[in-house]
Amino acid sequence: MVDTAGIDDSGDLGEKRINKSLQALKTVDCAVLLVAGNRFGNYELKLIDEFGKNDTPYIVVHNKCDVVKLSDETKNEILKHTTAAIVDFSSRTRAGFDEVVDALRNTVPEKSYLFKSLIGDLINEGDYVLLVTPIDSEAPEGRMILPQQMAIRDVLDNRAICIVLRETELKKFFETSCIKPAIVITDSQAFGFVKTIVPDDIPLTSFSIVFSRLKGDFENYVKGTRAIGELKDGDKILILESCTHHVSCEDIGRVKIPMWLSKFTGKKLYFNNISGLGDLPENTDDYKLVIQCGGCMVTRKQVLNRLKPFSDNEVSITNYGMAIAYLNGIFERALQPFCINREE
Amino acid sequence: MVDTAGIDDSGDLGEKRINKSLQALKTVDCAVLLVAGNRFGNYELKLIDEFGKNDTPYIVVHNKCDVVKLSDETKNEILKHTTAAIVDFSSRTRAGFDEVVDALRNTVPEKSYLFKSLIGDLINEGDYVLLVTPIDSEAPEGRMILPQQMAIRDVLDNRAICIVLRETELKKFFETSCIKPAIVITDSQAFGFVKTIVPDDIPLTSFSIVFSRLKGDFENYVKGTRAIGELKDGDKILILESCTHHVSCEDIGRVKIPMWLSKFTGKKLYFNNISGLGDLPENTDDYKLVIQCGGCMVTRKQVLNRLKPFSDNEVSITNYGMAIAYLNGIFERALQPFCINREE
Repeated sequence: MVDTAGIDDSGDLGEKRINKSLQALKTVDCAVLLVAGNRFGNYELKLIDEFGKNDTPYIVVHNKCDVVKLSDETKNEILKHTTAAIVDFSSRTRAGFDEVVDALRNTVPEKSYLFKSLIGDLINEGDYVLLVTPIDSEAPEGRMILPQQMAIRDVLDNRAICIVLRETELKKFFETSCIKPAIVITDSQAFGFVKTIVPDDIPLTSFSIVFSRLKGDFENYVKGTRAIGELKDGDKILILESCTHHVSCEDIGRVKIPMWLSKFTGKKLYFNNISGLGDLPENTDDYKLVIQCGGCMVTRKQVLNRLKPFSDNEVSITNYGMAIAYLNGIFERALQPFCINREE
Repeated sequence: MVDTAGIDDSGDLGEKRINKSLQALKTVDCAVLLVAGNRFGNYELKLIDEFGKNDTPYIVVHNKCDVVKLSDETKNEILKHTTAAIVDFSSRTRAGFDEVVDALRNTVPEKSYLFKSLIGDLINEGDYVLLVTPIDSEAPEGRMILPQQMAIRDVLDNRAICIVLRETELKKFFETSCIKPAIVITDSQAFGFVKTIVPDDIPLTSFSIVFSRLKGDFENYVKGTRAIGELKDGDKILILESCTHHVSCEDIGRVKIPMWLSKFTGKKLYFNNISGLGDLPENTDDYKLVIQCGGCMVTRKQVLNRLKPFSDNEVSITNYGMAIAYLNGIFERALQPFCINREE
């Protein structure tokens, strides 16, 4: 729940508050346009305009109806500009509360709250799914890291059977069981080794590719990732880190990816990093490539809206996991299970 | 880290503080006896006596050495009463800091920080371990609950291969996989169903039994659980809930277990519940049976010390998971993998 200051403000600080409100629009799954006293004017029209630009669903709530009721005149005026639900409400007496909840329920898009299956479209009930999960020093003692947990649960939710093993037991598994997994998902780091053991007719991908589908713009990422092969001397690359507190991600975004990219391409590249959800550079088309982090702390919508100015300007976009897969030479094989056409 | 008020206090409140300090002794893996100014007298001797009674390892730290150094005389006096490490230290200047850390490192027992394998003694490298994990409404969306996570990780840590499935896929697994698991671990709720499918020559147990070994006094629990069969009209049963904030555990301890026990035995039983780590009743031998919760929020030592007054008085002790297994008629089969002799 984000409570903004609205946009009817003035002065230097006021302008900052307005910008903050407009930024918030890009991140929410549904907005509530709050008015009162039958006031509906330019500020409200500007907001409706912004909602439209950002594909943000919204409802209109006329508050303080215990003091001044929403008039037919105002309602008709609002209806000239929107098809959104309009509810008369009082936060003090709670009049209209159920109507507000109903309006929200009908307006928030299903995809915002329905949990999306990770691999449900790739497997059938009763299938075997093999997860290769190396245990490294980053994994907390006695626990499975979140992507592994989520994948196991997703397999079970799809009524399939999950096999979990370390890469060291992979060979033994194929030698001793007569199971042919419907798909093998491995930690990216072990991909090079795993692909030498998994038979070619078994689909093989990585956790990072699977999770790119959950939090990002998968098809654009696929195109954008392949643009890595076309980078030239002097190209600028923007790296977006959605949160500011994951030290290991910071290391990946600021040290490892720039190093790997420079080494892989052999070009002189320039990198900018932006951390958190702060302002993006205005000159989006200065950049050849944007690399977004996995976005584990933000919503899909936040990621998509943050990348929109770039994809609108036809700047290539990808994310950490897919870029790393590409740089490790595992990208095309790891994409096969998703039936995306291979590079021509 | 528990910072106690010590035991040199007076008055009503002082006495409460002293009791609190003495209670803390029962729960810690190592104590630091803090003295200063070469004062070492009856309070310290009483504490050393308490450490001994509770099997609590400890070190002696003489603080404020920047003001008054530990004298040879004091040191020799202390050495008359203990073989524990004695370190001169200053919390202000940090003099002696490394020596304190070394002394702690040598004194804290290994079992306090070494993570104990759940089933490492029951399986070999390369074995298959089958976990049956029903997905019920209590499991948070997209996650595996902690005991399942810990079990999967334990299998991997032992370089074995983990198969995870819901009970609905169990039959298919045995029909199609040609794998013979070294052990099957199931959620207790599904045990009745699972045992009809798992062949008799494959060891089968439940998560609750496996975790009883981690947090409790397993062998005493086994004996105590069997005492359920000998309960008589009028027997008193004490239920110990180690924490106060798990609503679903509260329901198990206050409603379900009393109901199931009464129904199973057909006797008129009396139940007391104690929540948190507060005072135990003094008349321990009033009780025929003590049932401890799983102890997920406390240490093994806390559980063991809390049960000690009862086991010392030969009151039967068990825990939630094992009692429930017994009441569901799955106890003896679920114990087989642990080579505990069956009831004669």
